[in-house]
Amino acid sequence: MGLGYDVAALSELINQFERMPGIGKKSAQRMAFYVLGMDPADAEKFASAILGAHEKIKRCKICCNLTEDETCSICRNEARDKKIVCVVEDPRDVIAIERTHEFDGTYHVLHGSISPMDGIGPDQLTIKELLARLDGVEEVIMATNPTVSGEATAMYVSRLLKPLGVKVTRLAYGVPVGADLEYADEVTLTRAMEGRREI
Amino acid sequence: MGLGYDVAALSELINQFERMPGIGKKSAQRMAFYVLGMDPADAEKFASAILGAHEKIKRCKICCNLTEDETCSICRNEARDKKIVCVVEDPRDVIAIERTHEFDGTYHVLHGSISPMDGIGPDQLTIKELLARLDGVEEVIMATNPTVSGEATAMYVSRLLKPLGVKVTRLAYGVPVGADLEYADEVTLTRAMEGRREI
Repeated sequence: MGLGYDVAALSELINQFERMPGIGKKSAQRMAFYVLGMDPADAEKFASAILGAHEKIKRCKICCNLTEDETCSICRNEARDKKIVCVVEDPRDVIAIERTHEFDGTYHVLHGSISPMDGIGPDQLTIKELLARLDGVEEVIMATNPTVSGEATAMYVSRLLKPLGVKVTRLAYGVPVGADLEYADEVTLTRAMEGRREI
Repeated sequence: MGLGYDVAALSELINQFERMPGIGKKSAQRMAFYVLGMDPADAEKFASAILGAHEKIKRCKICCNLTEDETCSICRNEARDKKIVCVVEDPRDVIAIERTHEFDGTYHVLHGSISPMDGIGPDQLTIKELLARLDGVEEVIMATNPTVSGEATAMYVSRLLKPLGVKVTRLAYGVPVGADLEYADEVTLTRAMEGRREI
């Protein structure tokens, strides 16, 4: 960042923003200037939101989702079906599925997927925690991403679970609703054809 | 943000990011999760970069650019030509011009442009400060943005300065270097034609 002048505190802030995913030089600069323009109370709030999130948020003892308490509100919710566990890679996937308002089971957050290229093996994920909570669970839905590593993770986990007598299912593949068939890739279309259902 | 679960500290952080310019819901979420993934020392550094930038950075007493000292390094630099003042809207414009390494005069940062629609009149800008530093200045280059409000600001300032015997110039308009003529808008092309020079 050739700032051309001596504002170390500004460069530092720009650097901090630039390290974030998806944030380039220009955006980082714009954000830093936005922070400069905040009134002091707001800047204080922003800084403490960062520290607060960091200190308060931990993993649910049961499903490993993020929570500020010992267990998350979904695991604590009596109305949720504890016999069905939906396994996802990331807390954001829980948010996405919750948004459908269609799922009333519980979740298990792996915090990643098996990816030997990135040095992530099964031990880095919360698979141990999943195995420890299978008591009373009838179905595990593997909702990992439809990517190579998500697929590999789904296969790995299902091979561990099947011998234990748990039903393991996988999300359906197909064309996304609202999308244009013309732009669907061949693999997705093939899967959509394979998975076709009578109407 | 239908988070679907009880992580207030996370929602708060996402909200903070979402308020930034150019940051949508998805980016804000991604950034908040990135912060969660930082180790505590890094999160601390990030928070203090925000507070630090806010506390340390003030306006140069001469040119109103951002600095951590009384005056900025450009105004303090003996090698810079104090007889030429380049007037810009924003500290980022100083950075942009410094990047050319072609300008050895000094700057004046207006911190905005005249825009009655947004309730910004001349008094909200640092025009007073500009008038106060004209002693010994021979040329003022108006480098405000080539927009309606940048143009209005350039006209307003030039009308104030000309009676004082200061030469006021404006950045040249024309086609941007490296751009495709085909995609240049008509106004820019017209200006480029008007400003054509013999080669």
